[in-house]
Amino acid sequence: MNLSAIYHRPESEMAYLYDATTMHIRLRTAKDDIASVQLIAGDPYTLWGNLEFDKFYHAPQAMTKILSTSLYDYWQISISADKRRLAYAFIIQSTDGEQVLLNDKGFGQANPETLDDMNTYFRMPYFQEIDRFKAPEWVKQTVWYQIFPERFANGNPQNDPAGTKPWDSTDHPGRFDFYGGDLQGVLDHLDHLVALGVNGIYFNPIFKAPSNHKYDTEDYYTIDPEFGDDQLFKKLVQAAHERGIRVMLDAVFNHVGDQASQWRDVLENQADSKYADWFHIHEFPATYTPTNDFEFAGDATYDTFAYTPHMPKLNTANSEVQAYLIDIATYWIKKFDIDAWRLDVANEIDHHFWKAFHAATTTLKPDFYILGEIWHNAQAWLNGDELTGIMNYAYTGSILDYFVHNRIDVQTFINQLNDQLMHYRASTNQMMFNALDSHDTPRLKTLVHENMALEKQVLTFTFLQPGVPSIYYGTEYGMTGENDPDDRKPMVWDSKYQDFEFYQFIQKLIAVRRTFSDVLSAGTLQWTHQTDDVIGIRRIGEQEQLLGLFNHGQKNFDLTNYQQQPVIISQLADNNVLRPDEFVVYQF
Amino acid sequence: MNLSAIYHRPESEMAYLYDATTMHIRLRTAKDDIASVQLIAGDPYTLWGNLEFDKFYHAPQAMTKILSTSLYDYWQISISADKRRLAYAFIIQSTDGEQVLLNDKGFGQANPETLDDMNTYFRMPYFQEIDRFKAPEWVKQTVWYQIFPERFANGNPQNDPAGTKPWDSTDHPGRFDFYGGDLQGVLDHLDHLVALGVNGIYFNPIFKAPSNHKYDTEDYYTIDPEFGDDQLFKKLVQAAHERGIRVMLDAVFNHVGDQASQWRDVLENQADSKYADWFHIHEFPATYTPTNDFEFAGDATYDTFAYTPHMPKLNTANSEVQAYLIDIATYWIKKFDIDAWRLDVANEIDHHFWKAFHAATTTLKPDFYILGEIWHNAQAWLNGDELTGIMNYAYTGSILDYFVHNRIDVQTFINQLNDQLMHYRASTNQMMFNALDSHDTPRLKTLVHENMALEKQVLTFTFLQPGVPSIYYGTEYGMTGENDPDDRKPMVWDSKYQDFEFYQFIQKLIAVRRTFSDVLSAGTLQWTHQTDDVIGIRRIGEQEQLLGLFNHGQKNFDLTNYQQQPVIISQLADNNVLRPDEFVVYQF
Repeated sequence: MNLSAIYHRPESEMAYLYDATTMHIRLRTAKDDIASVQLIAGDPYTLWGNLEFDKFYHAPQAMTKILSTSLYDYWQISISADKRRLAYAFIIQSTDGEQVLLNDKGFGQANPETLDDMNTYFRMPYFQEIDRFKAPEWVKQTVWYQIFPERFANGNPQNDPAGTKPWDSTDHPGRFDFYGGDLQGVLDHLDHLVALGVNGIYFNPIFKAPSNHKYDTEDYYTIDPEFGDDQLFKKLVQAAHERGIRVMLDAVFNHVGDQASQWRDVLENQADSKYADWFHIHEFPATYTPTNDFEFAGDATYDTFAYTPHMPKLNTANSEVQAYLIDIATYWIKKFDIDAWRLDVANEIDHHFWKAFHAATTTLKPDFYILGEIWHNAQAWLNGDELTGIMNYAYTGSILDYFVHNRIDVQTFINQLNDQLMHYRASTNQMMFNALDSHDTPRLKTLVHENMALEKQVLTFTFLQPGVPSIYYGTEYGMTGENDPDDRKPMVWDSKYQDFEFYQFIQKLIAVRRTFSDVLSAGTLQWTHQTDDVIGIRRIGEQEQLLGLFNHGQKNFDLTNYQQQPVIISQLADNNVLRPDEFVVYQF
Repeated sequence: MNLSAIYHRPESEMAYLYDATTMHIRLRTAKDDIASVQLIAGDPYTLWGNLEFDKFYHAPQAMTKILSTSLYDYWQISISADKRRLAYAFIIQSTDGEQVLLNDKGFGQANPETLDDMNTYFRMPYFQEIDRFKAPEWVKQTVWYQIFPERFANGNPQNDPAGTKPWDSTDHPGRFDFYGGDLQGVLDHLDHLVALGVNGIYFNPIFKAPSNHKYDTEDYYTIDPEFGDDQLFKKLVQAAHERGIRVMLDAVFNHVGDQASQWRDVLENQADSKYADWFHIHEFPATYTPTNDFEFAGDATYDTFAYTPHMPKLNTANSEVQAYLIDIATYWIKKFDIDAWRLDVANEIDHHFWKAFHAATTTLKPDFYILGEIWHNAQAWLNGDELTGIMNYAYTGSILDYFVHNRIDVQTFINQLNDQLMHYRASTNQMMFNALDSHDTPRLKTLVHENMALEKQVLTFTFLQPGVPSIYYGTEYGMTGENDPDDRKPMVWDSKYQDFEFYQFIQKLIAVRRTFSDVLSAGTLQWTHQTDDVIGIRRIGEQEQLLGLFNHGQKNFDLTNYQQQPVIISQLADNNVLRPDEFVVYQF
């Protein structure tokens, strides 16, 4: 038995409250090394020398091998406890018949003496509802639609900046171009979103800022006048809510743009500024040496975002800064009733800040959604009292690597997805934001070289995953775009340039996701096929099951065994055969 | 290479800020499998496609194999970063020459392409001082002395409860006996503590409660009248501080005794009580069925401590309860200037509560010490924003198992200690409370069957560990005691029953610990010998080194190689030979 591969960690993604009365307990073992794992568990106070108190004692229960990666098998069990306390240990049997006990003290033999000693068990000391990671129900049922406001629709030409380019200009957008998109445009087109079926809008920043992307925030309390004003935004949120559409705003709390009044004050008054401690200034004056290329300010006397001197990093450990940013966060909830924040560069902000942010926002709205931009392992932020989810780049990156870039084989692909799923609690996986493209990447249609069959396949595969899917504006009409700024072209409203067949497909896909949101969010996930020819993903809910089959290989796959099942969505030339680039989703 | 055994976890005990500018990074590998581990690290923004920016780029640096357990080797490195951000990965070379790269995405080959992709590295996104686990300096320099107030000294016979037994009664104490010990008694004997050399008093509970042990709190704001009053306690803390002695109080915040006014109100008014939500009452009325034996109330309609119906569990998630308990915690700091809290049953209280507790107490005193009673793996509480340390039962339990109970062999012993040390940050290990006996266990002298040589050996071994040692009152005079209540005998103040030779030894041991507190707390720990005949522990500080050798075997160990070194403390019949039960600590 490969003992050294066996891993468990109390109070983590390996042992957590899934709902108020149910724990999930996981164990990791070396791949194909272990034949069975049993959980032995009971109340810590009655286990202790009292195994005869069998009304509190749980007989060993078999754990289920739920997923595997290249190195590991993962086992899981759901378990409740009348008294909301649990002591537990694992009895592990190898494929060659060896048996060990794993408890809080390490490995040993499972015998009456070891099993009788309460102090050797792993422990969930009490089911603390307040500490539980809570996944807002509405998020599980949401399909997001990402709007880059300057490019979605121009509803009010009165507020267009000087030099606004014509909407239907066929030029590729330049980095500093303006097209006049605004909030009135979004309001005017809400019915488009309703018809499409999405029920959440993720807005890129709308606060006052010089650029067209507005990530260089100047004033977090003011809607950029080029986009509209408070009254309009309030009306927009209200109109969205009336249509069952939630609203998520985007903010950068890691740093400000250099037009922010606090930073201007620092530059003016330096050490005497009342904002001197709002930033991370190592020595005064706050300066840097501009370089010719991209102003890489490695020598700035203050901390910046990346090495961009125009984006001074905020000192979020300063209680005034914390109060200021949390006031902003709550202001947009209290005054405008927004439902979610998407936070840029969330990983570079301290954990104390995120805990305060979580407390303040969920006090106002218990089911508020906090989405962070984190590119790497985010376990430290996803324990229930900071972020609700992250931009799931690692997961969608694997999907693109397999389906689009053909960089990895099917086994590596599935292993990577499983590895990511096992980084987090099941409840956390349901909150992950699964976007295949955005304002920061080439558009999916461009990535797939306009192979629409492939685009449908990869979108459908993504919509079957536990996280919440997001559509970048214009995807539904077949918009293309290279890396930014080309991925930020004005929305195609002219019907002669709209791909209506693709629109109908997206509409259907969104409907499927929303109809089956329970099973697609919280259902068990099984890979039924993992070959070069076909990937099969089964999602098993309490009421229903779905099976998706995807052919990303070279050979046909026979579907005759499945043809009795209702088809939910598909791309099939012949119902009996799954050809390359085709897919089908059955209901069971 | 046993890849499946290799383990790293960002932002945990495997990767943490040790001080404001230094990270410790650890990697775990299968025992004896790996020949070398190198860390490749640099600034995340300049690593990205910019390896030529070599002023920010760190060449691979060798990590040190610091400790091993039965299954694993642990590697560690200390590393700084000018810009307070770090991206890092591991290059791992097996004993048979195989090489792999481990990064945030898993295992791969170390080549220019993989090393050049910033998004694949593990990340410490920013060195957040506010999130760092901070180990108060004074705790590292402390030797605690635990006082069970009812039994330390009777300074004021006026406040003795009715039926108080004579102090020098030779009877074994009964479970419900009173002997009249009080705070005046402690004040009267402060000079004893000064002479002994301890510089911290850990008081068992002093709040108003019916029992002699006072764990059944009736009123957290009142000193038990049998012990004294506010004025006396204030005077005592002040007198202790004047002598350089810190004061730690003991509280139970998990539950109250059934005499607590809030619980009385619930029993009287049931669902109408304004305290109805202060507890975990499943259904009203709050009742239980008494049983004949030990009133095991498995059927209580409310949650209790263990199954003790007289100890109703507090609902610490209720903000009123949280505010109430935190007011208590801060009251004793603000009004009496205490330095530390020891918290009973800390593991059954929610994490939100401990975070609020940590914030409130450290706001008043930044170097406040929060010691929790947790018997099992406590990683979830020891990340810097909840507890500062725990009662280190697992660690001292191993020490007793080896030296006293002879339950484990030397290799198992060292493996267990190393395993415990690797559960936590180095800074956390320095805060662990290392007591070999207490009011809840037989006294050490009784455990060792009055083999004073062995008692000296095990105490000295414990004092050489990173955690803070604690002496249970009376140990210095050779007091004995079986399990409680026998371990709570009145302090022996009559000199004819005091073991003065042992007192001198303890005095010297405390002096050694305090003189060498820097190296003994924060120094590197190496096991130089791990055989049946001798254990060698080396502690390596920046300025000095100590080497302790302990013979717990049957054969003599030759010391001639060491005889040039100054001896700090020892028990040697012959300076050239370490005989069974002997020990020596050298300075290097």
